[in-house]
Amino acid sequence: MQSKLIVAVEFGDTDPAAIVFYPNFFRWFDASAWRLFVKAGLTLDILQNEFGLIGVPIADARSTFIKPLRFGDSIEITTYVASWKRKTFNLVHEVRKDGELYAKGLEIRVCAEPLEDGSGGIRAILIPDEIKWRLSARD
Amino acid sequence: MQSKLIVAVEFGDTDPAAIVFYPNFFRWFDASAWRLFVKAGLTLDILQNEFGLIGVPIADARSTFIKPLRFGDSIEITTYVASWKRKTFNLVHEVRKDGELYAKGLEIRVCAEPLEDGSGGIRAILIPDEIKWRLSARD
Amino acid sequence: MQSKLIVAVEFGDTDPAAIVFYPNFFRWFDASAWRLFVKAGLTLDILQNEFGLIGVPIADARSTFIKPLRFGDSIEITTYVASWKRKTFNLVHEVRKDGELYAKGLEIRVCAEPLEDGSGGIRAILIPDEIKWRLSARD
Amino acid sequence: MQSKLIVAVEFGDTDPAAIVFYPNFFRWFDASAWRLFVKAGLTLDILQNEFGLIGVPIADARSTFIKPLRFGDSIEITTYVASWKRKTFNLVHEVRKDGELYAKGLEIRVCAEPLEDGSGGIRAILIPDEIKWRLSARD
Repeated sequence: MQSKLIVAVEFGDTDPAAIVFYPNFFRWFDASAWRLFVKAGLTLDILQNEFGLIGVPIADARSTFIKPLRFGDSIEITTYVASWKRKTFNLVHEVRKDGELYAKGLEIRVCAEPLEDGSGGIRAILIPDEIKWRLSARD
Repeated sequence: MQSKLIVAVEFGDTDPAAIVFYPNFFRWFDASAWRLFVKAGLTLDILQNEFGLIGVPIADARSTFIKPLRFGDSIEITTYVASWKRKTFNLVHEVRKDGELYAKGLEIRVCAEPLEDGSGGIRAILIPDEIKWRLSARD
Repeated sequence: MQSKLIVAVEFGDTDPAAIVFYPNFFRWFDASAWRLFVKAGLTLDILQNEFGLIGVPIADARSTFIKPLRFGDSIEITTYVASWKRKTFNLVHEVRKDGELYAKGLEIRVCAEPLEDGSGGIRAILIPDEIKWRLSARD
Repeated sequence: MQSKLIVAVEFGDTDPAAIVFYPNFFRWFDASAWRLFVKAGLTLDILQNEFGLIGVPIADARSTFIKPLRFGDSIEITTYVASWKRKTFNLVHEVRKDGELYAKGLEIRVCAEPLEDGSGGIRAILIPDEIKWRLSARD
């Protein structure tokens, strides 16, 4: 399964060099990850109330920036799960403008539940089969 | 040379799980990179007017997130150049709370000048010795 | 003339109370203001190169927040010029979900040009008739 | 009682005109409001667990922007309660650089508790005397 998110690059996303301030790419990656989760029926409400998770936080994030984006650009972000491990999964985000690749991101996410020791800590659990199954369904 | 940046985690930096929304780490990495540049005498004004750069944009950014941060936490970010290539250099950002490592980031940056073909494009140049020298000076 | 901007409320726009962190509304107002300017043919490039402006910065901004918005909400922002003075104009932003008003914003903007004393300062000029005319055109 | 917050204006806070993108002022106002609340002993945890609130959300926010701020500027934000009504209170935020006023903000906030109808809605309650008393204490 893959999701597509269209993003309009806004004036406020850009810096004094008139190109996108790069942390915004990660903001868009997170938004695009949620498009995929929701498409798979995994809303935040379902993740919290059916799976007992606090969410699917990030263990590792990275991006390669190929060409700069500017105010007025319209981009399409394609997001899909590239691989699974027992407790982590890799989400790939491909950012294209007019079909050309402008950035490519990778998020390593976990399924996290709260520690029950009152510390406020969280821990990664084995990824539930149901979540793996839903995110791997054919489009 | 290394720089230190103290950051207070704000309410608005956190998400519905009450932990920091991860793109903010990259916002802090960029701020911490500028602390290092300015400490080395490389203000944006000097980079633009003495070196003819549009800036030092990011070719690649990544971070490992070790423990979650919350509103009210105070963190210290230590930033330094870890390695040089001909056209890129690696900046490491270590995020600590109470001396303990909470995240570790890496930015690969370039020295960029505008293309002169009116396209609005930018290109990475050989890193000027002066910039390398300044960022490598002893503290 | 009025413009419409559709915004999807993202996970990262919300705070530990799971409602939108309010500075994001102003980010959306700015994006919606640019939709109106561009619809009127006033791109940033045209404002800078044909009108000699550095932009249309904000002298005053305000918003009333009527009902909270949450992750997953889809909103529509309607933006139009409500009044003109010699050096300022008032932009109104109406935020609706399912037709119901959730917030109402007002931005007072100026047409700014750079001071020529090298101070980096800016000053508001008389609003050019052409700008007023374009933003007042019938849809 | 009043609080002071020092903020360093970062590269990423500024726009293509090299001045602060204005929604960031509201981000700083919120941070400064929390400095005041915490100084008065009203942490988020205490507001939630002792007072049963979801927080102190914004009913109305506004700001006048007097002079532009740039990357590298250091500002001081002074925050205090200017007036009380039964269900709202007004927070004033004065932004100064080198003692000079650059912006002045006003937030109208409420003490909000969750509706118990499962709608996810919130409602403003009468401001508890204890909250009023704490925020009105002498410095």
